[in-house]
Amino acid sequence: MSTTTQNLTGQSILAGASTEGNGRKVNGYNPATNERLEPAYSLINEQQLKLATAAAAEAFESFRSLEPSKHAEFLEAIAENIEAVGAELVARAMAETGLPEARLTGERGRTTGQLRLFAQVVRQGDQHGVRVDPALPERTPAPRVDIRQRKIPVGPVAVVGASNFPLAFSTAGGDTASALAAGCPVVFKAHNAHPGTSEIVGHAISKAVADFGLHPGVFSLVYGPGASIGQALVKDPVIKAVGFTGSRAGGTALMAAAAARPEPIPVYAEMSSINPVIFFEGALAQDPVAQAKAYLASVVGSSGQLCTAPGLVFVPTGAAGDAFARAVSGQAPETSGQTMLTEGIYNSWTAGVQALGSQDGVELLGRGTEGATENAPAPAIYTAGVEQLLANPVLQDEIFGAASLVIRYADAAQLQTALGRLEGQLTATLQLDDSDHEAAGQIIGTLETKVGRILVNGWPTGVEVGHAMVHGGPFPATSDPRTTSVGTLAIERFLRPIAYQNFPDALLPKPIAEDNPWKLTRRIDGVLQAKGE
Amino acid sequence: MSTTTQNLTGQSILAGASTEGNGRKVNGYNPATNERLEPAYSLINEQQLKLATAAAAEAFESFRSLEPSKHAEFLEAIAENIEAVGAELVARAMAETGLPEARLTGERGRTTGQLRLFAQVVRQGDQHGVRVDPALPERTPAPRVDIRQRKIPVGPVAVVGASNFPLAFSTAGGDTASALAAGCPVVFKAHNAHPGTSEIVGHAISKAVADFGLHPGVFSLVYGPGASIGQALVKDPVIKAVGFTGSRAGGTALMAAAAARPEPIPVYAEMSSINPVIFFEGALAQDPVAQAKAYLASVVGSSGQLCTAPGLVFVPTGAAGDAFARAVSGQAPETSGQTMLTEGIYNSWTAGVQALGSQDGVELLGRGTEGATENAPAPAIYTAGVEQLLANPVLQDEIFGAASLVIRYADAAQLQTALGRLEGQLTATLQLDDSDHEAAGQIIGTLETKVGRILVNGWPTGVEVGHAMVHGGPFPATSDPRTTSVGTLAIERFLRPIAYQNFPDALLPKPIAEDNPWKLTRRIDGVLQAKGE
Repeated sequence: MSTTTQNLTGQSILAGASTEGNGRKVNGYNPATNERLEPAYSLINEQQLKLATAAAAEAFESFRSLEPSKHAEFLEAIAENIEAVGAELVARAMAETGLPEARLTGERGRTTGQLRLFAQVVRQGDQHGVRVDPALPERTPAPRVDIRQRKIPVGPVAVVGASNFPLAFSTAGGDTASALAAGCPVVFKAHNAHPGTSEIVGHAISKAVADFGLHPGVFSLVYGPGASIGQALVKDPVIKAVGFTGSRAGGTALMAAAAARPEPIPVYAEMSSINPVIFFEGALAQDPVAQAKAYLASVVGSSGQLCTAPGLVFVPTGAAGDAFARAVSGQAPETSGQTMLTEGIYNSWTAGVQALGSQDGVELLGRGTEGATENAPAPAIYTAGVEQLLANPVLQDEIFGAASLVIRYADAAQLQTALGRLEGQLTATLQLDDSDHEAAGQIIGTLETKVGRILVNGWPTGVEVGHAMVHGGPFPATSDPRTTSVGTLAIERFLRPIAYQNFPDALLPKPIAEDNPWKLTRRIDGVLQAKGE
Repeated sequence: MSTTTQNLTGQSILAGASTEGNGRKVNGYNPATNERLEPAYSLINEQQLKLATAAAAEAFESFRSLEPSKHAEFLEAIAENIEAVGAELVARAMAETGLPEARLTGERGRTTGQLRLFAQVVRQGDQHGVRVDPALPERTPAPRVDIRQRKIPVGPVAVVGASNFPLAFSTAGGDTASALAAGCPVVFKAHNAHPGTSEIVGHAISKAVADFGLHPGVFSLVYGPGASIGQALVKDPVIKAVGFTGSRAGGTALMAAAAARPEPIPVYAEMSSINPVIFFEGALAQDPVAQAKAYLASVVGSSGQLCTAPGLVFVPTGAAGDAFARAVSGQAPETSGQTMLTEGIYNSWTAGVQALGSQDGVELLGRGTEGATENAPAPAIYTAGVEQLLANPVLQDEIFGAASLVIRYADAAQLQTALGRLEGQLTATLQLDDSDHEAAGQIIGTLETKVGRILVNGWPTGVEVGHAMVHGGPFPATSDPRTTSVGTLAIERFLRPIAYQNFPDALLPKPIAEDNPWKLTRRIDGVLQAKGE
């Protein structure tokens, strides 16, 4: 595999212009070989960052006023441009992340698919949230004047990219796509672990910006020194909201910076989750080997580097649970390590596993084998009882990578207690059959207060991008449980309502004009009208 | 007027039980006479506060599961109970606030009206936000399982009451009503300036809780030592969101406390706004004396103690603007001071007016006369140029009370510059006629980035409670411009989405069950369906 990709400049894209950074240079590395990848990327300083944020501020007024069809076509053009890159994009992403080709090809499809899905929403226009309370001139004791409401984008958005989805949660990923769909210019900070992948996608976005004649400040891609440029970006007064996917430490640092601004702004950080899976008795009547295989596949896929990987599995004590545990022990050696994203992540995983394995009452249940590449550790499954989980917060720490903990619970009361003590999570999964409905029904209420998504059977990895998806949940899963970072509801994170009172029709913005030229769904006096009425 | 109201206990209502506080006692005062009002109210300490928050946590599960009709009737019962108190409520509120009877009678109607409006929303059920992405078993490359989304309440909510609306933004005011409508138990901290009014309304709510057989933790009313009990309430881990109306200092203190929690939570604080009003040339062709009277009426109403009082008015230089300014000078002496809410607020107003009047380039334009009561200062109107406004941040400070600043602007460019430099505001108002449309059109885009509501003609005081209203805006007007604290959209502040993946129908919560027993509006595969389909 080539380690250099054609046409990469090693430069940031500041409002459409490839720009050499004034700071030091960094390279990507192939984590499968620890080989350095060219070109080196020059990091920008805070002064150069101002070029991006100032341009984003300038671009806001025209970008937020795009009519729906052009706005939607712009999002679709980004998707087309990404596809037009061809095999080079997946090859570069493989080299920079160690993720396998099938996974990255799928991820590219998810990335372009979500751009097109968001384009559908933009074309339909429901995100404008139009409400009309018509004038009531005869009302007593006082008449009512006409009041209309619509949502407008909040302003330029900073997006800090994730390491683990170099396409779907990176440059043109969910946060960028939803901010652009809302009408917000984006300043994107690339993850330094996949700079070339980021540049390729950045040019795909910038080409669409140029082809549609948009202000170049609609999108910038910046390479900067790790945390400090992220902090500078969040503190920039031009920026009105932040999207982030990454570690709990990284997310909480951005939350603190945003809260300390003269004008505090929202941070949408997706951070930390161990995604409890709960087995009920009835479910365990199935083939335990097949169940163990499905569990281990979910643990080791993408080397466990998924936000929704099942890090905590509750299994009842007793014969059926024992059979499952034995099956996990038996199948674990069949699993093989896969390359992790970076040497740093590999080292963190190793430290996390050592910490977990050394806790009182925690035992190794099964271990896979190391992979053939660098940074491909042997998957590790541990087990403990509810008592240990309740007594020791280390057992709730996320270990980012292929590791998981099986907790044996004695009865429904013990399970309820354990679930009630969990931190906020992205997901919880119930493994059940018809005979388990009553037991499952007793814990759903608790889970609703703890998570953003509850699954029945199946496994939480693999997040569908749709209208009903919630990829969110209470802290520390995210910084803001009122939102999702996957699915079309994500667009609403970057909108705010405005009321227009007693406006002459000539001055009303098009989305709320009396003759409804954009044919939007409207809520009139509290009642949703059929589309375009 | 009697200074004692029958049946007041001077006690907090902790989960339905009138409870003597373990702290010191405070009295309300009649600000018109500085006379002390009985009874004294005993303040609770943090240990007693735990009785309220623990009960709210216990009440959450059952309260959030109420079916729509009962939930709506509960809100309506609160309104009925408030009305059933009769004249005693308005009389006590008059004694505690110095506000006139007509204003308080109107405010009571607004309070009960918004409870009934929110009941309509609850009965209709659109706030559940149901989305269904049906299973696609034939989809390639991978099938899709059924995914459903609904919104659930965030959990127990702390509401810190305002001084300036002893009914509509206090015990059963907008924050309490919207939290209860969302399905969140409420722990309400009374404002110590109107403790008796708060207690009367608190019993009206508690009676409805009891009559409907709800868990008593659904509502508590606490009297506590000013800021410290508010801080304790916001820091309580049971509390999941905060509603607040008050000063910028108070609001930012609560925001900081909420952000510093182990689990940060949202604070919806409505704080500080000077509500710019912009006169265009055409509008000034009208009768300047009538315009000056309307302006002054908006400044002095409720002694200027309204969130949307017009504190900053832009008037063009030149003959027409001069005529308006002369009319303001001529009419100001006709205005008379009205009692302010407390001696402390009166003192703050006096200090604010002295500070504004002593700034370079600020001149007194007109002054009213003092009122006959205590704490009824003479309304004060100042004037300055755009240069002074741009150079001196003191000119943007809110002076809570009957004071306002007229800024003379030379041309469209100077107006645009001045508006671009304003902090976030609740409202902006355009005074215009047909000939001003072009000039107005040029600044609406700027105003949209600065405010939550834009009015044409009229005055910003008097906030309609409806579906389209936005009482919000960028910081420091509020802590969260994505929301409103008035109108039915306020309910959404206290909701969060959850996804249910691959659930058997038997385990689905009723709002998202396949047969749609609550007949809710649903978004199916991204498309809104007609009600109940």
